[in-house]
Order: sequence, then structure tokens, then C-alpha cells
Amino acid sequence: MQGKKISRRSLLGGAAVATVALVQTSVGKVLQPIQTATPPEDPTKTVGPLPSKVGTRSPFENSVRKPSDISSRTPLQDMYSTITPADLHFERHHAGIPTIDPNKYELLIHGMVKRPMKFSLHDLKRFPAVTRTCFIECAGNFRTGKEDMTPQEILGLTSQSEWTGVMLSTLLREVGVDPKSTWFLAEGSDAAILTRSIPVSKAFDDAMIVYAQNGEAIRPAQGYPVRLLLPGWEGNTNVKWLRRLEFGDQPWMTREETSKYTYQVGEKVRQFSFEMDARSIIIYPSYPGKVEPGYIEIRGIAWSGRGKVNKVEVSTDGGKNWEIANLQEPVLSKAHTYFRYLWHWDGRQTEILSRVTDETGYIQPTLQQLKDARGPEMGGYHLNPITAWTVKRDGSVWLKPEEFKKL
Amino acid sequence: MQGKKISRRSLLGGAAVATVALVQTSVGKVLQPIQTATPPEDPTKTVGPLPSKVGTRSPFENSVRKPSDISSRTPLQDMYSTITPADLHFERHHAGIPTIDPNKYELLIHGMVKRPMKFSLHDLKRFPAVTRTCFIECAGNFRTGKEDMTPQEILGLTSQSEWTGVMLSTLLREVGVDPKSTWFLAEGSDAAILTRSIPVSKAFDDAMIVYAQNGEAIRPAQGYPVRLLLPGWEGNTNVKWLRRLEFGDQPWMTREETSKYTYQVGEKVRQFSFEMDARSIIIYPSYPGKVEPGYIEIRGIAWSGRGKVNKVEVSTDGGKNWEIANLQEPVLSKAHTYFRYLWHWDGRQTEILSRVTDETGYIQPTLQQLKDARGPEMGGYHLNPITAWTVKRDGSVWLKPEEFKKL
Repeated sequence: MQGKKISRRSLLGGAAVATVALVQTSVGKVLQPIQTATPPEDPTKTVGPLPSKVGTRSPFENSVRKPSDISSRTPLQDMYSTITPADLHFERHHAGIPTIDPNKYELLIHGMVKRPMKFSLHDLKRFPAVTRTCFIECAGNFRTGKEDMTPQEILGLTSQSEWTGVMLSTLLREVGVDPKSTWFLAEGSDAAILTRSIPVSKAFDDAMIVYAQNGEAIRPAQGYPVRLLLPGWEGNTNVKWLRRLEFGDQPWMTREETSKYTYQVGEKVRQFSFEMDARSIIIYPSYPGKVEPGYIEIRGIAWSGRGKVNKVEVSTDGGKNWEIANLQEPVLSKAHTYFRYLWHWDGRQTEILSRVTDETGYIQPTLQQLKDARGPEMGGYHLNPITAWTVKRDGSVWLKPEEFKKL
Repeated sequence: MQGKKISRRSLLGGAAVATVALVQTSVGKVLQPIQTATPPEDPTKTVGPLPSKVGTRSPFENSVRKPSDISSRTPLQDMYSTITPADLHFERHHAGIPTIDPNKYELLIHGMVKRPMKFSLHDLKRFPAVTRTCFIECAGNFRTGKEDMTPQEILGLTSQSEWTGVMLSTLLREVGVDPKSTWFLAEGSDAAILTRSIPVSKAFDDAMIVYAQNGEAIRPAQGYPVRLLLPGWEGNTNVKWLRRLEFGDQPWMTREETSKYTYQVGEKVRQFSFEMDARSIIIYPSYPGKVEPGYIEIRGIAWSGRGKVNKVEVSTDGGKNWEIANLQEPVLSKAHTYFRYLWHWDGRQTEILSRVTDETGYIQPTLQQLKDARGPEMGGYHLNPITAWTVKRDGSVWLKPEEFKKL
């Protein structure tokens, strides 16, 4: 179905020489030899750069996040599976990325506990460790409104890592939480001193204190040396650069949970809307890609903050008919799950969509369904609508934009 | 059991200022602001670097590979789980890392096939894709002989990635392999033009043509833009920078499979010893770490080229008694599997060891068992002995070295 016969080979053109360069940073570290984007005509005639301390990307790969002063977005359209490389994990900071000396790091746990304690990073690493692969998604992860938007621009504020650390419940057995405690405060050590109130039930469920990401020490932009991990809950509650947990019997009503992350929906106000709703998006094909008629494997990611993805359906006719997509194993709870669906495109203009159903039975809504349910005041958080792509006759792919105040 | 009471807090000392620097490489790319290792005394008083296109590691983390002219070794002792960050994946090259223009890339499949074809990278990506997490290990991955060796030095030539690509069997349906073909040749486009002969049965089993690693495009040092993936088989057969597959009815007896990767064992010569035997190693505690008496979570990795890890046993008394370790879920076939075992150390000198049993029932041997089985001529490949660590009274951890010609 693809490929071309050997006789159709076109000759390689152009002469170029591979260059090896040493990089010197302003902090004095010599990095590794790197490849440049002018490869030799025949790579078998040139010995390439030798092994190095730290590898690099190909000079032909220029996938980056889209940074603003407060966030940067994962280039989902360039991703082939569900692990996000740590240096492309989305960011959302309230006052930049603090630099923290791991040798001076301490986590204080106090309040309604029998034995208030401080734990060094060394202490935390001595406890029994657990590894869990899950997504973290920003509560405000939605944009639409124009055709030329990539998955990164629409919802690039979600990423996935293999996290390692200690179960929070393990630490709580050390400090002895008062059974009357119902909430705890998590505080970061960034310049915003970001704080959130979290129900104690989550602490005893699956909350983790994590110090590693994708096999290695957590990155500064994701909370080095330690962050709170609340699988499936909105990103900002997974407090980065975590320095303090205080146990109490009511929420603290902090700046971030009153001025932000509290929002009007219809005639009510939503607060402490922690769980991220099930969501999916087709990332191939997507804008600015282009496809040819014939077989196209539609690919995307689906996830739910409430458990496993149960199924993903794909429509290639604008939502009239839906077919079941294949899910890449292993399907993990509260994790980005890769889906694929083989489609034969006849070359006519159409719309392609995906929708996920999670293990609670929840079905991803359309934006119109969200509008109908919420009324004119939608709020800017927890918007998880189906994304529709228009595939035009020339093979170009465009977002089907919808009316939404936020763009 | 760990942590210290709040009253024992020592005051933070020293004044320092966070610095933000821009890095300029010799190829003209401005990278992101970076953190330096002089953090402010109080990070809450300083706005840190803002979000960036590509993230960096903490300046306090300096884990690197150990490069020589032909290889570099993964720092396993610094790893917390089973994914190896792509830029720390081990390397073993026979003539450096070729620079390949992905727009000119072609994979030729020919020989005993009905329709010889060439596939561009674009072609390969159009086929139904599969993602698989598995290890790749060099056949020569073993060193011993002195006490002060890290896991990286002993067996750092194994790494794990989440690979994505197309099943080789899918491509073979396109070209129509002659049923009489029993072997195929895989050829790389590095300056060594590394070639290996592979049984066709592997092509129809689980062989893949992969173009992605850990979510993104494969790295140059791992075969950009395309490598052969033979799950569980010795590293060199997973040909990097793959440019040609030729189908035939006998092995080619190429340079690499005769001068290398063919070796005397006892009175026989081993060739085409593809499958990597089951292996495990404790990576915490290990040299040059130091531990304190009390509870210690022993941690390590175990794997097998023949399927899943069935169990890992840990001994904390030099091999007299063995206990079952916990395996981190999900346990995947032909994949590094993390194990953990909670040990209470009484402070006396002892030896700690791990041994794996895979799903075929194969049990990892000691070096002495390997010597007994093979005789004085051991060969330098496929050596997978149990690694024993001596924990001394002062808490220092040292390799228990064994006599082996190869160091």
C-alpha cells in the first residue's frame, strides 16, 4: 500500500560535510559533540561523532514547547507514544522556576498530626518507593476559535511521565495524622508560594511525594527536588517544589484556590473541582499536517482523571458513525492512552473526531453539550470537548473551530 | 522510621544569588535560560527562570554516561525506574554516529522477495504503528575484577525505551517474502556498514522497524531516523541507521558476525547466540553509595531476553537465604523490571545479592556456575552472573569482585 518500487529511486543530490562542534555553555561545562544539519552525501564514508556523556536530538528535529511568561505547551503533534520527554513536559508556573539545593531541601509535615516532622530528600528516598505512570494536566487546558491551531495550541498543557517516589500515606503513618483531620494544605517554595487545600482522603488514596521522573531526578520545571503527585487531579494541585504539608479540618481558602481555580458555571460557583474529566484528541492527522487519499492510521491520546480509558471511538464522517479504535497496551489508570484506528480516506472533504469513555462510564462531550449543560457562563476550567478536524480535498487538515470566549 | 523532629532543624546558611544565563551553541541556536548551582538562600524571594522551549536538568544533577571511543554506559545507579532518558541510553558504535537527512532516508527491502521496494521515512510512518517498551543490551555487557565499580561500570550497556514503529511483518506482507527464505541481512548506514544475519522467524515474530523512542523521534545515537528492533536479542543485531534488508536462504557470515560476536566457549564456538539471558542487579545500595543501619529498601532491575521476569530473589546473607522481592507493575515481556525488597540491616558486614528467574524457568547463575558450565574458555559475550555487593560495617558498599580475564 505504501513504499515505492526500487526503480523509482531518485538520486541523492548535494554535497555536504558533517561537522562536529563542541558546545561551551556560560557555566563552563563542555558538552558533547553535536551533529549539524549538513549531513554528508554518503554517511558510510565519514566517521561520525563518537559516544558522549549526554546525547542530543537530531539537528533535523526541532520540536519545542511554546513558552509564554507563565506556561509552555507540549508539542503533542510530534509525539509518537505516551511518555513525554522530560524536557518537553508542559509548564505552568506562577512565579518562575525556583532553584533549590537538594542538600538543604526539607519537607515539613505538621498541623493536626501527632509527631510533626521534617524530612530531608535523603529521608524521603529511604522510604519504600513506588513508580507510577500518569498524566498531569492543567485545569485551564483548552483553546479554540480558529482553524490553524495545532494539538499543542489547543491542549498542550497535558503531559505524561513515569514518576517515582513515596506514597504520601507512608509518611502519614510516621507523623500520625489526627483522624479528625479532613483537609491538608500543600505549599510550594516558589516565589508565588503556591498553596492548595486537598482532602485528606486523597492523601490516603493514591497521593505520592515524587522525586524522580522518567527514570532520573525530577526536572526543575516539574518541581525539583520534590513535588506532590495527585494522580488524575488538576495540575496546580500537584504542587511543585513542595516544602510543607499542614493538616487541618477545613480548606484554607488560599489565594490560588479563590482568585484562581474557582469559577462561575451557570448560576453556581465551582471550587475544588479536582478530577480531570475524560478527554481525547486525534493528533495524527492534525493541523498543520497533510494526508493523501488511501489508508490513514488515525492516532491520538485519550485519558481520564477518574481511572482507565474504557474505549475510544473515532468518527470519520463528522460524528454520524463511530467505530472503536485500538488501544495501545498496557492501558493504565489515570494515564494517557494511545489509540489508533485504520481509516481508508476516499479523498472527499470530511471531519474526523474522537471521543473517549472512561471506566466510570463517563463519555467525553462536545463543546455544545458542555454549553447546554453549563449555560452561557462556562468558566475557563475543566473544558474537555471533543476536537474535530476538517480534512479538505487537498489533504490539508484544519481545526474545526468553535465559538468560545477564551481565545 | 526516618525523618527528624522539627526541633532539630538546622538553619540554612550561606547567601547566594540565582543566576539566569542564555546559552549560545556553535550552530547558532539560543537555548533556554538555565539554572546555576548557586541557589538563593530563600527561593521564595526570587522569581526564577520562566518557561522555556526545552527544559534542563537541575545544576545539582550531574549524572552522565561514561564514554570511550566506541561506547558509553548508562548511569544505572542514578536511575529510579525503568525508562532510560534518551540522552543517557548506552551507546556502542563501530564507526561513530552518522548524520542522516530524514528527507533522503530510504529503507531497501530486496533479495528473496516478490516485490523489492524502497520505503521513505514518510512511507514507514504511514503503516499501522505499534509501541513497545523493552530493553536493548550489548552482548558484551560484563565487567568485574575490583571493588570500586558502579553498576554503570559493571553492566551499563543496557537501557530501556518506549519504542514506536511498524512491525517488520507488516512490511514483509508488502514485499512478499519467498517462503524459502530463512535468513535476512540487516545493514546500517554508518561508516562501519554494520551488518548482521537474522533468522526470518524473528522477522515474523516481534521484530520492528522503529522511528520513535520515548515519545519523540529516535535519537541519532540510537539510530536516527530508523533502527531495527529485535526485542530481547543482543544489541548489535538491533541495527541502527538501518538502510537495507536482504532476504536469503543462509546467513551471510559478515565481518561483525565472524570477527565479533562469535566466540569460543569451552571446546566449541558460539555463533548467532541472539537471545540475552535473564539478569538482575541491585542498584541501590551499590558502590559508591553508603547506607545506615535500619530499614533499607534494596532496589534493582531484572530482565530477560526470553520473556517476562517471573520472580526476583534477594539474599542479604551472602546467598544462604533468599527472599522474594516485589516487582513494580506492569511487568512487561523482554523489559527491565524494577524490583524492591525491604531489608532491616543490623549493621554487621554482609553481602547482598539478587537473582532473577524468567518465565521460561531459567535462573540467573553465579559467575562460578558459568565457569563450571563453560570451562576455562568463557568467551566475552553473554555473561550474566549474579552481582554481589559487600556492605561493610561503616555502611560503605563495594562490589564483591571475581576473577575474570576481561577487566
